[in-house]
Parts: sequence; structure tokens; C-alpha cells
Amino acid sequence: MKILGIDPGYDLLGWSVIDDSLKVYDFGVIKTSKSEPEEIRLLAIHKGLISIIERFQPNCLSIEKLFFQKNSKTAITVSKTIGVAMVVAALNNMPVFEYSPTQIKNSITGFGRADKSQVEFMIKRILKIPSSKQPDDAFDALAIALCHALNRKP
Amino acid sequence: MKILGIDPGYDLLGWSVIDDSLKVYDFGVIKTSKSEPEEIRLLAIHKGLISIIERFQPNCLSIEKLFFQKNSKTAITVSKTIGVAMVVAALNNMPVFEYSPTQIKNSITGFGRADKSQVEFMIKRILKIPSSKQPDDAFDALAIALCHALNRKP
Repeated sequence: MKILGIDPGYDLLGWSVIDDSLKVYDFGVIKTSKSEPEEIRLLAIHKGLISIIERFQPNCLSIEKLFFQKNSKTAITVSKTIGVAMVVAALNNMPVFEYSPTQIKNSITGFGRADKSQVEFMIKRILKIPSSKQPDDAFDALAIALCHALNRKP
Repeated sequence: MKILGIDPGYDLLGWSVIDDSLKVYDFGVIKTSKSEPEEIRLLAIHKGLISIIERFQPNCLSIEKLFFQKNSKTAITVSKTIGVAMVVAALNNMPVFEYSPTQIKNSITGFGRADKSQVEFMIKRILKIPSSKQPDDAFDALAIALCHALNRKP
């Protein structure tokens, strides 16, 4: 069972592919250019995700659930990328699982209000990630995939 | 120049195709089932829009711009459908134009705070729509396409 984890975002969308034995296949970010029209940036995310799915053939998508934020403009933009990711999953017959930030932190550190560095420390430890510099969004995507690996029913 | 107008929504997404001589090709709604998982409903919107585009070959997409709403849950859901519509447009090389509700009402009635019945009256008049019962979402999609037809630079 391979899990695609996505940290939804617009400038940078984090992604990871792991399996339920906690093997890490790869992780990274899809970047989109601020100088492009919005629909071209969303298309870049659509195509980027299709190419990751073709490469790793994951069985499901685990994605962070968005809640109301003070910055509603960001919420609107990020929601668009979630819609794009969900369609790509559905096109590939991948069921989608959504987890709140609290569920994710709780699954990985045992504490729903853990800070970023604590989550990162535990991800590196559980998934045996070498401690080189990685973008936060890629770590967040690893956390989201790992949350599903730890929570899914066998 | 054919314009696809979309009133973004989740339970019902309104659509219309008109051209810049104000000929109406067709209009209607895409319905999704509340009993389906979210990704399957978004996929239904994706496929529904692709089939409309194959049928009418519109040149661009005109869509209502979402602003912050009190109901943030609705804003998140509707934003996902906007993301889906924008990707379908980009996949078909259709540039996307966004208009605020005020711009739409102002273009059609000359008054940015016009009520729904006034907008509907003017749409029926300008586009010569027979006064049979139509879903509101389909009328909204006609208004959005008409707004672009009236505003676009020749």
C-alpha cells in the first residue's frame, strides 16, 4: 500500500510517497511561477501530480484538511489546489483521506499542539530521513502521508 | 468568440455558452450527489465541464470571483470547484476571466447592487431567453458569460 501525501499550497505544494512499512520512495515540492496566470499555475500542479502518480503508482491520497483561517484569501487559493489534487486522485482511482493539523501532529508526536521542529524531529526519526536541508512543505507532506500510514485500518 | 460562463458551486454548478454576438448556445447545471465522496463529486464536475467544452468548443472561460464570505466552509468548498474549472480551461487553452458579483450586476443592469430578479429580467431581455423556469445557477452562469461578452476588448 503506497500513500501519496500532499501538503496543499500554491507557490509550493509539498508531496511525498511512502508505504505502510514506512519505506520512503521520494518527496519534494511542486513550484509554480508567480508570473503565470492562475489557471496555468493550477495546470502545473495538475500535471506535476499526474507525473508523480505515473512514477510511483500510489494507492491512495492523504491530504491536509483545510479549516477556516484568518487569511481567507490564502484559504481560497489553497482550496483551489486541494480541488485539483482531489480530481487527479479520483482520475487514478485513489481514495482520498483528509487529516486535520491536530490529527497529524498527534499521530506523529503524541501531542496535537506539537511545534514544527518536534514534528520534523520525529519524522526524521521514524522515516529515517537524512538530516539534510529540505523544504518545510516536503516535510509537511511526509507528515501527512505518515499520519495515514499510522492511522489506516489494516 | 464563444464564452463558457461558470457559476461555481458544489451541489449545483451553473454553466452557459454564449458568443460575443449574444447568441445563446445552451445553458444548464452540473449536479453532484451528496452521497458520493468529495473527490468523486469534483471528478463529476471535471468530466461534466470537459464534455461541455467538447460539445461547444468555447474560446475562453468567464467565472465568478470568490471573495471572503461569512460561511468559510462554503468558501473552501466552492474554491475547490473553481480550481477544477480553471484546470479544465487551461487543459483546453482557454484563458480565464474572473468577475466580481458587483462587476457582473453592474455590466448587466447598470447597478452593482441590483437584486437577483432585476439581473434575471435583464438577462432574459438581452439574451432573449424564453421565460420558462430555469435553475438560478444556470441564470447566474448566463450573467457571468454575458458580463465577459459586454466587457471584453474587441
